[in-house]
Amino acid sequence: MKIGRLQAFSDGVFSILLTLLVLDFKLPAYRDGHLAQAVLNQWPILVAYGLSFFYVGTLWLFHHDYFAKIKETNWQLNVLNLVILFTVTLINYPTSLLAESIAQQQRNDMQFAFSYYALVALLISAMFWVLYRFMAQHHELTGYDQNHERFYQRTKNDPLKSVTIYLVALVGIQINPWLGAVLIIAGNVFHFIAYLRLSQGIEQYGLIKKG
Amino acid sequence: MKIGRLQAFSDGVFSILLTLLVLDFKLPAYRDGHLAQAVLNQWPILVAYGLSFFYVGTLWLFHHDYFAKIKETNWQLNVLNLVILFTVTLINYPTSLLAESIAQQQRNDMQFAFSYYALVALLISAMFWVLYRFMAQHHELTGYDQNHERFYQRTKNDPLKSVTIYLVALVGIQINPWLGAVLIIAGNVFHFIAYLRLSQGIEQYGLIKKG
Amino acid sequence: MKIGRLQAFSDGVFSILLTLLVLDFKLPAYRDGHLAQAVLNQWPILVAYGLSFFYVGTLWLFHHDYFAKIKETNWQLNVLNLVILFTVTLINYPTSLLAESIAQQQRNDMQFAFSYYALVALLISAMFWVLYRFMAQHHELTGYDQNHERFYQRTKNDPLKSVTIYLVALVGIQINPWLGAVLIIAGNVFHFIAYLRLSQGIEQYGLIKKG
Amino acid sequence: MKIGRLQAFSDGVFSILLTLLVLDFKLPAYRDGHLAQAVLNQWPILVAYGLSFFYVGTLWLFHHDYFAKIKETNWQLNVLNLVILFTVTLINYPTSLLAESIAQQQRNDMQFAFSYYALVALLISAMFWVLYRFMAQHHELTGYDQNHERFYQRTKNDPLKSVTIYLVALVGIQINPWLGAVLIIAGNVFHFIAYLRLSQGIEQYGLIKKG
Repeated sequence: MKIGRLQAFSDGVFSILLTLLVLDFKLPAYRDGHLAQAVLNQWPILVAYGLSFFYVGTLWLFHHDYFAKIKETNWQLNVLNLVILFTVTLINYPTSLLAESIAQQQRNDMQFAFSYYALVALLISAMFWVLYRFMAQHHELTGYDQNHERFYQRTKNDPLKSVTIYLVALVGIQINPWLGAVLIIAGNVFHFIAYLRLSQGIEQYGLIKKG
Repeated sequence: MKIGRLQAFSDGVFSILLTLLVLDFKLPAYRDGHLAQAVLNQWPILVAYGLSFFYVGTLWLFHHDYFAKIKETNWQLNVLNLVILFTVTLINYPTSLLAESIAQQQRNDMQFAFSYYALVALLISAMFWVLYRFMAQHHELTGYDQNHERFYQRTKNDPLKSVTIYLVALVGIQINPWLGAVLIIAGNVFHFIAYLRLSQGIEQYGLIKKG
Repeated sequence: MKIGRLQAFSDGVFSILLTLLVLDFKLPAYRDGHLAQAVLNQWPILVAYGLSFFYVGTLWLFHHDYFAKIKETNWQLNVLNLVILFTVTLINYPTSLLAESIAQQQRNDMQFAFSYYALVALLISAMFWVLYRFMAQHHELTGYDQNHERFYQRTKNDPLKSVTIYLVALVGIQINPWLGAVLIIAGNVFHFIAYLRLSQGIEQYGLIKKG
Repeated sequence: MKIGRLQAFSDGVFSILLTLLVLDFKLPAYRDGHLAQAVLNQWPILVAYGLSFFYVGTLWLFHHDYFAKIKETNWQLNVLNLVILFTVTLINYPTSLLAESIAQQQRNDMQFAFSYYALVALLISAMFWVLYRFMAQHHELTGYDQNHERFYQRTKNDPLKSVTIYLVALVGIQINPWLGAVLIIAGNVFHFIAYLRLSQGIEQYGLIKKG
């Protein structure tokens, strides 16, 4: 089967998830004439929204480029993609918890919210690791050749590195929530770098034209 | 008319419905420093979300593969597809009721919520049965041949089996809600198996290439 | 410019609007053990949802078939399509008002809600009339020929008939809200019939192949 | 990489954002029999919705035509497009604030809401300016020639003009919120005119066929 509808469906889920995140911005209770102060106090929502938008956005970029070199799909890949999308949609809720707990500045609650976020991020990266492994074993879906192999060797450990970052973040959060926050952001930056490597690798090895 | 826009529109509805389900996760009332406990008490939402995500996801997989062998659409198929999508969107509300009633652990309410869920699932399967029947009578839309016929004979009773499972579930729920829950999950597992059979059948009989 | 992205964008708006309508189903206040009664009392939501799902669904069917015979777009058609989509999205709110006012059974409120609904439906039909007129004057977008002309002559008054039905409905609602409700449903049925005529006309005159 | 999925993803975000705006219409508190008055008092929601629908709709038109002349994408354009979409989604919240503050008629709150709206609009235009600059330097993505150059020279300052309008609006709002409102609308009208110039320029210079 062609990969087209899998891509379209995934694009749908990613774009809806990104856009639903804006629903976290809700009119605050405020006194007449003090709307500005009430909205500015909502800065944690903007921070959490920005973080998750770029995280999910990067995941979409990644998904976009990664599937660009795949020609065919089968039921296993369909199911695997569905599980990946499931884990990605889970990020929506901890995004709200993040904003809420930062606004309240309660340490325990921040630790919980950050841990939840890191755990979902860890799950997402773990699922991408499964995807990498699966694609390495199903050459019939990509028109696998030496270039694919070289590319795979270069990038195959990226998801495990992400998993490790989020594991460290989970530990760090228990020590100090802000240390955990820095590690979560580091994880997102790492995803972005991994995306750049993926994108450049695909071009360098000519995987789309040859694939 | 080409089948492309019908697929795109259906992909849209499926992906939006899946993603809207995350809106069921709502910030609970909680005391400062006890966010973790309040969120962990929301486990029924996660369970209901997981169940419906995989149910609707499987329906999408099914829809994806089933329509992959169809080349053309006409007004009847357009309308039939719309009715199917209508029944699928109805699952959103009983998913919330499921989570709510499990959280409250009130037997009557659980029986009602589970029955509602099973009833919608039954309706969806019944509509797929109508779709199977319709496609068997409109060979002009698929480029029907002996392989299509053999495939149809092998799979034609799948939707009726699903309907039967949900009928049994409806009875079971009245005896014990958890018995009904097991039967609903059995129904979802059966859908997944039916999807695998569909996917393999399409490949085995070469329905997409020849269709 | 190709018509493809206009169709994809419109499919997006239609499918999101349809699916957002399910958000009208909200957990009611209820006493423990009486969830069933509370949900069954929400039947007006189901009625309003069913009505609007099939109305918007029929509009999508219509849009689907109508644009299937168009090959190119220009800025005027892009803008016109955007205005049509704007009027269609407006149906979401009177759908909620419909459900609310039927639930409360307050005559004045029902008259207002039904009038709002009929007014938006009237606007939508009026915009489709503008679309018909526009397409009749821009033959370069369709590869216009005698068959297009014959088809146009046969269907050109359909939107004005719809406008008339909704005008009558607006008057009828002031006499008796239920009379208005019947006329609104009549309008929706008329849309469906107009869709069938459109679909058959396109096939009969071979507008897609020749267009 | 082909530009197709970037367009599909962007169409998704635009169409979802447009449709989510309808969620601002919420059932007001009202006394039995006075629903009409309560809903009519919500006119600021309709005004804000209309404004943002046409603003975001125009941005989509613009995006549609602008990317129609681009053939390929690379990681920089993917990221840039994501940042543009991020800024566009931010318009959702000030749209709600606009409606709320106009309804309350409190001058300070209106100034804040209008300023927020103008600031997001300014950001969006600034990002489009970055896009224009980027495309002028990456001819390999469009099949750049003399016509592209002429077209670029003619339109290159459009985003800066928009930025200027919104800067003036930001100042104007501090003097009188309604003056600011007029300038925001002027900005939207300017976008629409810029879109028309873009659309006509693309046709005149034959950028899509040659591109």
